This record gives sequence, C-alpha cells and structure tokens, in this order.
Amino acid sequence: MNALVLWGSTDFGQPHFSGDILWRTNFRAPDPVILMEIKEKSYLMVSPLEVERAEKEAEVDEVMNIMDYGETEAEALEVFLKKHKVKNIAVPAVFNYQLGKALENNFKVVAVAPLFYPRREVKNDREISETERAQRAVEQAMEKAMELLSDCIISGRCIIRPPDFQHVLTSEYLKALIDLKLYSLGFLGVGTIVACGLQAADQHCAGSGSLSAFEPIVISVFPLSMKTHYWTGLTRTVFKGEPSAELKKMYGVVLKAQEHGIEMTRPGIDGKEIYDWTIKYFENAGYPSDLKKRPMEGFFHGVGHGVGIDIHEPPSIGRVSRILREGNVVTVETGLYYQRLRGHIPVGGIRIEDMILITKNGCRNFTKFPKNIKNMIII
Amino acid sequence: MNALVLWGSTDFGQPHFSGDILWRTNFRAPDPVILMEIKEKSYLMVSPLEVERAEKEAEVDEVMNIMDYGETEAEALEVFLKKHKVKNIAVPAVFNYQLGKALENNFKVVAVAPLFYPRREVKNDREISETERAQRAVEQAMEKAMELLSDCIISGRCIIRPPDFQHVLTSEYLKALIDLKLYSLGFLGVGTIVACGLQAADQHCAGSGSLSAFEPIVISVFPLSMKTHYWTGLTRTVFKGEPSAELKKMYGVVLKAQEHGIEMTRPGIDGKEIYDWTIKYFENAGYPSDLKKRPMEGFFHGVGHGVGIDIHEPPSIGRVSRILREGNVVTVETGLYYQRLRGHIPVGGIRIEDMILITKNGCRNFTKFPKNIKNMIII
Repeated sequence: MNALVLWGSTDFGQPHFSGDILWRTNFRAPDPVILMEIKEKSYLMVSPLEVERAEKEAEVDEVMNIMDYGETEAEALEVFLKKHKVKNIAVPAVFNYQLGKALENNFKVVAVAPLFYPRREVKNDREISETERAQRAVEQAMEKAMELLSDCIISGRCIIRPPDFQHVLTSEYLKALIDLKLYSLGFLGVGTIVACGLQAADQHCAGSGSLSAFEPIVISVFPLSMKTHYWTGLTRTVFKGEPSAELKKMYGVVLKAQEHGIEMTRPGIDGKEIYDWTIKYFENAGYPSDLKKRPMEGFFHGVGHGVGIDIHEPPSIGRVSRILREGNVVTVETGLYYQRLRGHIPVGGIRIEDMILITKNGCRNFTKFPKNIKNMIII
Repeated sequence: MNALVLWGSTDFGQPHFSGDILWRTNFRAPDPVILMEIKEKSYLMVSPLEVERAEKEAEVDEVMNIMDYGETEAEALEVFLKKHKVKNIAVPAVFNYQLGKALENNFKVVAVAPLFYPRREVKNDREISETERAQRAVEQAMEKAMELLSDCIISGRCIIRPPDFQHVLTSEYLKALIDLKLYSLGFLGVGTIVACGLQAADQHCAGSGSLSAFEPIVISVFPLSMKTHYWTGLTRTVFKGEPSAELKKMYGVVLKAQEHGIEMTRPGIDGKEIYDWTIKYFENAGYPSDLKKRPMEGFFHGVGHGVGIDIHEPPSIGRVSRILREGNVVTVETGLYYQRLRGHIPVGGIRIEDMILITKNGCRNFTKFPKNIKNMIII
C-alpha cells in the first residue's frame, strides 16, 4: 500500500508552515499536524488539544489523536501506517528530515518535488475569487499611497508631506500607510517595498530613508490574507514630479514588455518563450541585461510565478521551460534595473506587476489599477 | 572535518522559516538561504539577488553566491563542502528532507534535536531587552482591551459596547482592537485569543461571537515583533460584571498556583517539579485534572515554555524532566478548564500567563500587568 505523508503547521507566522496541508485540509493549526492519504482516504493526526476543533473544521475523512498511536510522531506514524499495511511513502521535498529518517526504518520513502499536489497549480473558483478579493484590497492600499503622494509638495528634490508640510516623505512612512490600510482590510503586508532611485535598482531592497522627487519609486505590495492565507501581488513604479525623458522612455519600454508578456500568456505556451521574448525585446530597445555582472543589471529576474497559499508557487515564467495551463494564477512582473549610469540608460529601477488568471483561450487580468505613464506621474 | 548545515528563510510569514538561521546571522531573507559552520567560521550561501544585501547585513564570516558553486542547492553544497574536506554534517531535525538525502550521497548526515543551537536557550542582553520591550507593547494592547470593557455597559448577560451602545461586544471586535494596537506598535498579533465561557475552556479556541457578562473571558495575546521576530506572551482572565463565588474561588486558586509556580522558578530546578506541584495543588484544592478524558479537563497543558525567535522554544516546564538555567526566558501560564459542570466547579476556563527571566538566584517577572482578582473584575 502507498501513502502520502505530510507534516507541518498551517497558521500564518508559524514555523514549519505547510501550504500543502492547508490547501488539502483547510484547517488552521499553530503547531505541526500530520496529514496522511491512503487510497482515497485522508487522515489528520493532531495533538489531543486540537482533536475537537479538527473534527469540526478539517476537511478530511478522519481526525486522530496522536496520543492514541504513540508517544512521538515517529512512533504514532509507524503504528498507524503499519496498521494500514503501507509499504511506500511519498513526502514533500521539504519534509521534516528527522521524521523522514525514522520512517525509512520501516518504509520506503520518496521525496516529491517541487509541488507535492500538482493540482495546486490549477486554481478552483474559491481560490480565484479569493485572489480577486485580495487584488481589490491591495489596490486600495496602493491608492492610499498615490493619494498621499498627490497631497505632498516638492521642494528642490525633496518630497514634503502633509499634514504639517515640515517633514520629508520617507519610504518607512509610505510603507506604514500601505501596511496599515492592508491590515484594516484583513491582509498582512509582508516585506512591502517602497524603494526610490538607486534602491529601486535592487529588486529585493525594501527601501529606507527619504524619497526623492523626479526619481522612480517602486511600490511593490504582496500581502497575504490573514483569514485564508492566500497571497497576491501588485507593483507600480511612480514618480512625484515630472521625470527625465530617459526615465519616461525606460518606463514606456517596461510597460510595453509587460503588456506584451500578458498578451502572450495563454494555455499551452512555454513560460520560457515569454521570458526569452522579454529579454530580447529589452535588448533590441537598447536595454541589455547582464546576469553575470555584480550587481546584475537589466532584466534579471523571472517574468512571473504562480501565487496561491504560498507567495512563490509553480508554475514560474522564467529561464526554465514550463508549459502554462488554464487555471494558473501567475504574476507578470517585468522590470529593468541599472545601478550605474550607462549612456542613455538612467540609474534606477522600474517594475510593473499584475496578477493574471490563465483562461481557456488566453488570460484575464485581475489587476484594475492603472499603469500608463500619465497615471504614474503625480504632479 | 565536521560542518553544521542549515537551510531556510528568515522573514516572518515565509515558508521554511528557520529561527536558527535568523538567530545565528541576524539576516532577514524571504527565500531560503543556506548557513554553514565549519570550524570557527560561518558561511552564508544566498541567491545572486541577495549577495550585496547579505554582505552588508548578515553576521557571518563569508557570504557566497550559490551560483558560483552549482546550479542547484544540492550541487552547490556538495562542491563547497568537499572543498572544505567535510565528512560529517549536522542538520536541524526539521531540515529539508530532499536536500538531506542528497547530502547523504557524499557525507554522513546527523539530525540534531530538539534545539540545534543549545545556546539559544540562554538569552543575551539584547534578547532580554527585546522581550521586555515586547512585554510593554503587549501590555498596552491588553490595557486597550480593559479600557473598552470598562466603557461597556451590561444589559442582562450581554456586554454592550460604545460608542453607540447598540451592539453587543464580540470576541472579534476585541481581538481587532488588540491586534490593531499591537500592529501600530510594530507587533503582529498571531492567533490572539478572546474566548468567553465554554470557549475559554478550550485552550486553543481563539473565540468567536458575543462575549457574556459575569463569565470568564480569557484574553491571550502572543505577538511577534515584525522588526526582530522575537515573540512574547501575556494572558489574563477578566470578567465584565461581578462573577459567581465559584468562579472567583477558581480564579484565586489559579492565581495562587501561578504565583507559586513563578516563585519556584530558579536555576537548577527541574521544570517537572513545578508541573507536578501545580497538578497536585489543584487536586488538593478540589480541581482535579483528567488528561485521558475527551475533552480533557482541569490543568492539561504545560506550565510554560521558552520564548524567543520561536513562540515555543525549549526549555519547557511540563511533564518531561528539564532543568532550568539562568538566562532562560519562559512563560508561566497556569490554568483550569472545565467544559462540564461538576459540583462546585463552574464551567469555563481561567488562565494567567506572565513572562519571566531566570536569574542567578531566582527569576524576574517581565510582566507588570496586574492580575489580582480586583483588577480583573470590571464593573
């Protein structure tokens, strides 16, 4: 007999979080639980403290008290799996190593990577509406940021904020505003990015310090729903005050590439094709990429990735071949980053990200937030 | 040569979070990184996107770009570890199973449990002041809840809340108030509990629906610092309106046991001794515990546990023998829970939790929030 065995917690902010268990059971638990699937039946093994709640809430066939099977997880698993005549076990790649080794004493254990439940890549109606709901929330937070920028005044290259117009606007202030709005809507902003100028050219820099007028400000917001643990993402690059012609040109090129990337996204296409097109398009437009240089420059990350219970899920749209399918929910996030001036290329980073659903014939963009240059320049 | 190898992410809300890596490097990264220690040197292997930031921020001897060593984590590890003539590897118990298996092809791998870095149990000055700071924040949030309860009026058994005095006070409303206060202070309330009456008798029930006057309301708040990822905890049981004599008596017994538990806590004592004393004390006072019954009743969880970068860390104070040491930061959380009426024992749950530091000669209570019955009854 074969079994799937998973181990982990399912509440946000907890160690050993398992998106697979949450996806499969819809049960939130702060401490690790064990999910097993044998033939068509699913079993959830929990601590005595969680039995009653799991019986009410977990979408599984049977809930068991771990203490009824053994003093330790390894012991309880051995007793239960032997009772069900299990010989072979599949576990996720990130399974608990010590528990996996204990299982090897009695069973043949195989790690499955990268996605344990391939069905997670194809979202159902509930997941799709959850993502749409999340996009509306993140757009409200982005709107809040835009409103504040609009209320600010420019002095020299500084952005001065209301209400007293005595303080420069900082990355921290804008992030707090965005995150507080998200929080009030039930979403948690994790690592929200407000990065300006040179900071914007470092994709993972969350940003700090004062923001400058006329420079690109990358605002990237990717919160998770505290209720359902579904993630979403939205990135815009905005300017307070009219930017240089070079920056406007670069913005136009990124927008064109991002929009074309979305147009290409349909069932059956290889994500690599979209990635290759993007790199090539940038190069032809005069924005070469160098992934070997330190720091890297140009377009050096993937075009997108699946989003769901985990912020990064398959399928990814990048250098590795990967056919996209109907029901995939993916980001399309295109950008250019240069930390050093180079002829007509300005210093800074520009990234534009939408969330899309791959439909039967093409795709549907969840994101309604404007992205044309006129809307992104705030006077 | 021997090496320690750890794998995981270190930002809050990310999957595969490794408290060990965060503790050892003080570097926050959303995607998994690999930490290695060989002889007295520490090495952090990160993706090309993170190299520059890691070089600035990570408290390690050397930062490496994983791409300079291999296309996959397993390959990069093999190349690097062989270069350093490593033969034996120690990994945390929760290490990535697939990566562990790959390492076994070339090295002897041993999983270390339960705490990979035993030094994490003994907090340094920075960690202690971080916990104190967190306790002040959580106390402010608790105070906020008390203030609201004080502003409410009682109608029948209902608690009616301001400003309009038209709505009953719910668990959700009070939790949102607490969590928003915490959030504004830089702390994230994860799974905050406001549980009343029968719900209070289920230790892990977060509570829902309207709160009742004259009944115990367990308020348990255990946020994490979004800046440093240190956790803390505070639990109080409050009453809106004078409770019954039975409830007051039960409260007094729990408080006595909790205070005595704190008094017993000192370096060199076995946590089991405190646990055994507590169970016995409750029994002698007429509040027996039954851990075999479903649902369990009486005192059915541990007296406490270590708190730090993880919400549950060793040492625990419970049924398993465990000597406590100077520098341990632990909760002392004592409670009684009964879901069925039983003679003089009322239905409901009462829990009182403080955070303490074990000092050279005894302990110091981080918690300043009042806990005597007078302060807990809000008229």
